[in-house]
Amino acid sequence: MDTNFIYQQIQQKKSFLCLGLDPDLNKIPEFLIESSKEPLLDFCKSMVDNINPFCIAVKINTAFFEAYGSEGYKSLELLVKYIKAIYPELFVIADAKRGDIGNSSNRYAKAFFDSLPFDAITISPYLGTDSIQPFLEYENKYAIVLALTSNKGSEDFQLPNDGKLFKSVLKTCNALQNSDKIMYVVGATHPEQLKEIRNIVPNSFILVPGVGVQGGILSEVYSSGANNKVGLLVNSSRGIIYASQGKNCFEAAKIEAKLIQNEMENLLKK
Amino acid sequence: MDTNFIYQQIQQKKSFLCLGLDPDLNKIPEFLIESSKEPLLDFCKSMVDNINPFCIAVKINTAFFEAYGSEGYKSLELLVKYIKAIYPELFVIADAKRGDIGNSSNRYAKAFFDSLPFDAITISPYLGTDSIQPFLEYENKYAIVLALTSNKGSEDFQLPNDGKLFKSVLKTCNALQNSDKIMYVVGATHPEQLKEIRNIVPNSFILVPGVGVQGGILSEVYSSGANNKVGLLVNSSRGIIYASQGKNCFEAAKIEAKLIQNEMENLLKK
Repeated sequence: MDTNFIYQQIQQKKSFLCLGLDPDLNKIPEFLIESSKEPLLDFCKSMVDNINPFCIAVKINTAFFEAYGSEGYKSLELLVKYIKAIYPELFVIADAKRGDIGNSSNRYAKAFFDSLPFDAITISPYLGTDSIQPFLEYENKYAIVLALTSNKGSEDFQLPNDGKLFKSVLKTCNALQNSDKIMYVVGATHPEQLKEIRNIVPNSFILVPGVGVQGGILSEVYSSGANNKVGLLVNSSRGIIYASQGKNCFEAAKIEAKLIQNEMENLLKK
Repeated sequence: MDTNFIYQQIQQKKSFLCLGLDPDLNKIPEFLIESSKEPLLDFCKSMVDNINPFCIAVKINTAFFEAYGSEGYKSLELLVKYIKAIYPELFVIADAKRGDIGNSSNRYAKAFFDSLPFDAITISPYLGTDSIQPFLEYENKYAIVLALTSNKGSEDFQLPNDGKLFKSVLKTCNALQNSDKIMYVVGATHPEQLKEIRNIVPNSFILVPGVGVQGGILSEVYSSGANNKVGLLVNSSRGIIYASQGKNCFEAAKIEAKLIQNEMENLLKK
């Protein structure tokens, strides 16, 4: 997917929401578990069917599928194929946090961009740029590199010494050839750093998890992180998909997503 | 698997070799591709059948299976179940480079320790210690944290400023409760740092890739990295499994592995 198309979708849908799918058998409503042979898959498909008018991207957390072995992986494959077939306008991200030496990263790129039709994948940059390069060799596919994450553990290695590590990741990646195929993850829980990060990567898309349950505030993210084309994908997972755990789960999710989209529409008017 | 058992295996087999399985359809002998419905799986099973007398551990690179979608993942599942059923004395590592926020790492731990019966998994530590903790909650299972990797990209973030990042990873992880369930990855291409690393984590197992094709030298690794219980798992992948790409591939692999084991036996006598 071309980034210009994503910019257009933002204007068209008046939204920069990314729907996060972290399907958890302990939280999926019981009626679905009882009635479906593949509850993970069916829950996620119905979520996308209901939420797609309000979001421009979907982020699938691979861990929640891998937890169920090869059957879970099969559901992951069916889910991404369903979404890309029915909603080709959605930007579909594998939240897989992969990254290995070149020889192996090459295989992960094939896994997520060839065997599974994802548009993008999240990458953990510890191994350095040669672990990222293989993901940049696909046309209209993107590597979304972890810069500053939303969790407490971001204080362990990313933030010490005035954020030396995450700034080095941003600067080093942004200097790569094909850096136009790189996006970055910055948690909504760090609004003070988001402004600084936007100055380091003025033209890149930033994927922002951590709004909602994790405590990040949408208006703060927008004012610190938007560029002149918006350039943000703000993710909400649990706040939407577990808005209700009863029979009305899809309706409740829809209301939650619509409320976020309303807020985004107002921000976009400014 | 208890680490004392691994120490015993080293003495019994006179080896600290880890067999690395990175099965590549472009390198697997043609007769196998033609005769087998699941060439990745059958190639790897036969490798383990042939090499197990000379190694104490097996490291499976998940990228090479995921590259083939859910069918590849199914082969991965069957492979690890086969190895643990037939050779329970082998320490089986998922070289998967996972790591995510706690909620998701939890699912990856379930994926590799519950759904698949691995003994250990490699972890990329960028997200911090809360991404490692969920893997330490399983008895006799291990998180093998990337410290200093064998690739060129290790110079990007791990090595600058006198190795501040990789040393911080080692010190921070070693200070965790349950640090006895953590092992570390240190590439054989950094023998000068291995001695220093051994001083930081005197009692931990160190998994050392990069001997052979990547240029690391076994005797240097042993003299810099061994502790009084050896404490090393030295991996060889391509040097063994692609020793020949003809009909004699298993025999050639066996010879290669036996030569490495001979060298290890000599080092252990010192």
